[in-house]
Amino acid sequence: MEVAYYGGAFIDIHEKVIPIQERGHQFGDGVYEVIRVYDGHPFMMEEHLDRLEMSANEILLKMPLTRTEIKEIAAEGLQRAGIKEAEIYIQVTRGIAARNHLFPDVPAQFAMTIRQAKQFSPEKRQHGVSVTLLEDERWANCFIKSLNLLPNVIAKQKAVTNGHEEAVLVRQGFVTEGSSSNVFAIKDGILYTTPATKRILHGITRSAVIACAEKLGIPVVEKEMDVDFFTSADEAFFTSTSVEIMPIAKVDEKVLPADRPITNKLHKAYQALYQAVAQ
Amino acid sequence: MEVAYYGGAFIDIHEKVIPIQERGHQFGDGVYEVIRVYDGHPFMMEEHLDRLEMSANEILLKMPLTRTEIKEIAAEGLQRAGIKEAEIYIQVTRGIAARNHLFPDVPAQFAMTIRQAKQFSPEKRQHGVSVTLLEDERWANCFIKSLNLLPNVIAKQKAVTNGHEEAVLVRQGFVTEGSSSNVFAIKDGILYTTPATKRILHGITRSAVIACAEKLGIPVVEKEMDVDFFTSADEAFFTSTSVEIMPIAKVDEKVLPADRPITNKLHKAYQALYQAVAQ
Repeated sequence: MEVAYYGGAFIDIHEKVIPIQERGHQFGDGVYEVIRVYDGHPFMMEEHLDRLEMSANEILLKMPLTRTEIKEIAAEGLQRAGIKEAEIYIQVTRGIAARNHLFPDVPAQFAMTIRQAKQFSPEKRQHGVSVTLLEDERWANCFIKSLNLLPNVIAKQKAVTNGHEEAVLVRQGFVTEGSSSNVFAIKDGILYTTPATKRILHGITRSAVIACAEKLGIPVVEKEMDVDFFTSADEAFFTSTSVEIMPIAKVDEKVLPADRPITNKLHKAYQALYQAVAQ
Repeated sequence: MEVAYYGGAFIDIHEKVIPIQERGHQFGDGVYEVIRVYDGHPFMMEEHLDRLEMSANEILLKMPLTRTEIKEIAAEGLQRAGIKEAEIYIQVTRGIAARNHLFPDVPAQFAMTIRQAKQFSPEKRQHGVSVTLLEDERWANCFIKSLNLLPNVIAKQKAVTNGHEEAVLVRQGFVTEGSSSNVFAIKDGILYTTPATKRILHGITRSAVIACAEKLGIPVVEKEMDVDFFTSADEAFFTSTSVEIMPIAKVDEKVLPADRPITNKLHKAYQALYQAVAQ
């Protein structure tokens, strides 16, 4: 069963709880996180809550709940939902106030939903997916996980409309990240990914994959990748909380090699991380 | 009385009508307009509805109402509100759907609020206001009047916290626009403003002021203004639907001349436009 929490109580996920004049609704004035639950256990929750607090702090938003309170709500929500493979979505906005750009003197609002996690077929992971390169038109602070997601939404829609799974964004000739993922390339046994500047989300799956590579003795280089470098990779993949590691089979017309020994090794190592937690 | 309209009916402005999983609330996936009403008459409503349709079109959002329907709702709303000096706020989002970046197959949602217009004291207009230069960190498509307003909100808040009225945004050394306004400078009798590229909102007040200048025989040049050019202006002002024309007295520490013959002439001409409509 899907579960939601808003205004201090568990509610029906479809319940109307927000007025028109609310900062999320009118300004995208808020931040969010998505946490994957494996076999009933939230995975890397501390890291997600760290980032939620960082994002809130960057936009000068005072968190309305403590970390302990959020974890208690998540635990009760998971119990109510009875979903073992779930996604916890957390959203904090600057609250309910008459429309005005200036910060209102009202408490921030906390929302949570718990839903079935997206499932990706083994065939899709086996074959890999197609991505398309699109211009990165987003703002300068993509490291903040904010609710201003219109450019991401449009890029993802454009990609899928044109038969791809994801958009890989390009800023001034260099790959930044996906519309809702981070990107990696492998060349001559070295794992490359875009440096964690303000231009990209500092993905938690991204960090975990880097840690896995280091444990496996795979050299990792954070480097600005131009389009030629990326499309001539031996292997490439994107990562996110929902998708874990998704191999890229094609970048627009350019087909990448079908053999992906390092990607497969990394995905196994990543799966072992959450399987260890879930046991 | 404040009035709101949502889901096909007039409602109390504080009524909770939106669920958590709504595209405006979770992605800022929508567009908006603000229309000033003078003495009961909406001013330049066609231009605002043109722009609303343009913005919707740019983000591939299908308007849920015709222009005639919107005008009828506004007219009835104004009657219900009984406010002569009002602001009509219109917002259209991609609707209510389980969270997913991809466009959902649901109707767009239309919201309207009608409130008292902001009033600016004659003293403030007489003295002019202070503005601060801040880095323009927004996305590449600021000509779309979208709900992704977090950078605007943060810039405005930073300006006001530091004792200014507005932030004037600067991209790569050139002034773009204010956090919720367009900017103009006057030098040697010529009126300058940032060209209407994708980087700025194509302000309706901006266009009207340009038309006023042309009618008054004041030469108008649309030109990228660097910071030196802007801060050494003979006169400068910003424009918006709410503020009309607001003289800039100071740009950070730089004090501009207190004598503003052209700004005053332009503001009188602008006021004459809506006074003509209201009669």
